[in-house]
Amino acid sequence: MVLAVQWRDAESSEPTGTASGPCLRLIDQTALPQEERYLDIRSVDALVEAIQRLAVRGAPALGAAGALGVVVAMDQGAREGWGDVRLAAQVERIRDARPTAVNLAWGVQRVLPLVSRGREAVLAEARALVQEDGAANRELSRLGADWLVEHTKSRRAGAQKLRIVTHCNTGALATTAWGTAYGIIHELHDRCAVGLVYVDETRPLLQGARLTSWELTQDGIPHVVQADGAAASTILRGLADAAIIGADRIAANGDTANKVGSVGLALACARAGIPFVVAAPFSTVDLATASGDDIVIEERSEEEVLVVGGVRMAPPGARGFNPAFDVTPHDLISAVVTEHGIVEPARDPNPGLLGRLSRGQSR
Amino acid sequence: MVLAVQWRDAESSEPTGTASGPCLRLIDQTALPQEERYLDIRSVDALVEAIQRLAVRGAPALGAAGALGVVVAMDQGAREGWGDVRLAAQVERIRDARPTAVNLAWGVQRVLPLVSRGREAVLAEARALVQEDGAANRELSRLGADWLVEHTKSRRAGAQKLRIVTHCNTGALATTAWGTAYGIIHELHDRCAVGLVYVDETRPLLQGARLTSWELTQDGIPHVVQADGAAASTILRGLADAAIIGADRIAANGDTANKVGSVGLALACARAGIPFVVAAPFSTVDLATASGDDIVIEERSEEEVLVVGGVRMAPPGARGFNPAFDVTPHDLISAVVTEHGIVEPARDPNPGLLGRLSRGQSR
Repeated sequence: MVLAVQWRDAESSEPTGTASGPCLRLIDQTALPQEERYLDIRSVDALVEAIQRLAVRGAPALGAAGALGVVVAMDQGAREGWGDVRLAAQVERIRDARPTAVNLAWGVQRVLPLVSRGREAVLAEARALVQEDGAANRELSRLGADWLVEHTKSRRAGAQKLRIVTHCNTGALATTAWGTAYGIIHELHDRCAVGLVYVDETRPLLQGARLTSWELTQDGIPHVVQADGAAASTILRGLADAAIIGADRIAANGDTANKVGSVGLALACARAGIPFVVAAPFSTVDLATASGDDIVIEERSEEEVLVVGGVRMAPPGARGFNPAFDVTPHDLISAVVTEHGIVEPARDPNPGLLGRLSRGQSR
Repeated sequence: MVLAVQWRDAESSEPTGTASGPCLRLIDQTALPQEERYLDIRSVDALVEAIQRLAVRGAPALGAAGALGVVVAMDQGAREGWGDVRLAAQVERIRDARPTAVNLAWGVQRVLPLVSRGREAVLAEARALVQEDGAANRELSRLGADWLVEHTKSRRAGAQKLRIVTHCNTGALATTAWGTAYGIIHELHDRCAVGLVYVDETRPLLQGARLTSWELTQDGIPHVVQADGAAASTILRGLADAAIIGADRIAANGDTANKVGSVGLALACARAGIPFVVAAPFSTVDLATASGDDIVIEERSEEEVLVVGGVRMAPPGARGFNPAFDVTPHDLISAVVTEHGIVEPARDPNPGLLGRLSRGQSR
């Protein structure tokens, strides 16, 4: 399994690294699957740039990058003699590098109280966060697989394997290890319960075709890549038994921001009467956000839409519209799966539904 | 306006042509918008290849290419001394070059009875078909614009301009001139009633980004190109007042086959409570097909999905799934607009609804 985010101590640095000293090592996801290229991050500038151009992406991976990024900032501050004010400002730049994924800010906030106790305390807390995220992924994957097997029973004849639609990338590359929606698929595969995965290519940046298909290939999970526009008809034609996605932010009522294209899957699943499942660690739940109306949707460069594979497809002068995320309303979501348990927003509308998971009431 | 399909007599041949003698001239739509390249078709092989690789595409344009293609076959037969049986077999190859668009077979069938009366009779009938399609486009565009202005009145404050989502390409390139869904947008623009057009890029072959954006740019109609996955959220966020698409085949009950991705727009419009409109000449209506269940969906090469802009995006070994069309159920279609009038399948479910238009009962 290729890890999206790792901390490298000076002594553990391998020849892949281009400079010396401890660093945050990211695999450059913009180069995959053609090339496995690593970035050894030793400055806030480099980290912010990597986050903004999506060299590292995926809500849980951004949480880890945020927490470990504070160590990067402290190390850079020590080298360059920053005072507390400057350090705080640089940490804020990391926290605000992307607006929609709640985990980035959450990762930074989690380690911030420890800054006064020194670098080692911050690093230990960031490493604990990474560990916990991995464990959360494993647990939510087991819970989600159980739920899906149970809730697709009536559709499938006996032991027939599941056909699943997924969108964007939610595997180890998007997290600290294992994955969320991908983790459930992987868990189902380990139970010999996956027939076929339909992977949306996920324009504009093709995380499905480039990253999810790469991870599924490595894990030997049968799949096909389809255009995003094909997803609704795949579902309506009865070719799929469920759709599973990850999340960038889940509001208190269950409304979920995720990669643009997600809500289209949800609409099709509702029409077809099959489960639409959101899988995320509880760190992606933002109880301070009441509903999807309050979620800021990041708009990215129009060039991402107008240029395809390095070739400008639209005519000169044409403009693009490039929202990176969309919001799926809670009534279209059959289940939100976290490591703390599962809630079912579509059949249980409640403004504070997700709060139940923080109190473990759903387990 | 660039014409997708033209007949060139020997005397009208321009330097663009690469050989002499009469020909069917197509603009190669796979090269647009980077290059305006023309194909002068003088053999059935060349025509079938052009149709299958989508150098000419769009239901009404395929109807014209089918009808004029019979003249190409007759001319080739005369040169090469074909008998009636061979000619009939070659004409069948043209008719069956693509399965989903009904117009291709319809164009061929329309001129076929005239073959015994000689080439000039066939050419005259094919030219009449082209003329009539152009006139039908103009008429349905006026009817569709009237209908849309009327049916969006309550949403818009006063004279506020319309914001419209469209998919794939339905302009002059897809027809014989003017366009269908595009024709309605053009007509609305002529009435100063278009605020903004959201153009789905339309993967895998990007007819929206390459062709529709090019036509809108030439016509000076304000628009943005968006990823197909963004369409549902554009609609759900209240950024659009209606969606309009063309059609490749409309069944007797109103179920409509169109470019893959269309049904996702329909689902979003139904959820948002805005009109979802299908625009096509009556030649696209296939009363012999009872419902969408009976429509054959063409599956195209997986390479179209796996390779983007000449670069293979998916990892080695990954497979693709590439249905070219999807079927929108009639209950999601607010209006089917033809030159014979308009029916409203969503509020008027009826197995023979489209038959009303053949009798002109809806005008």
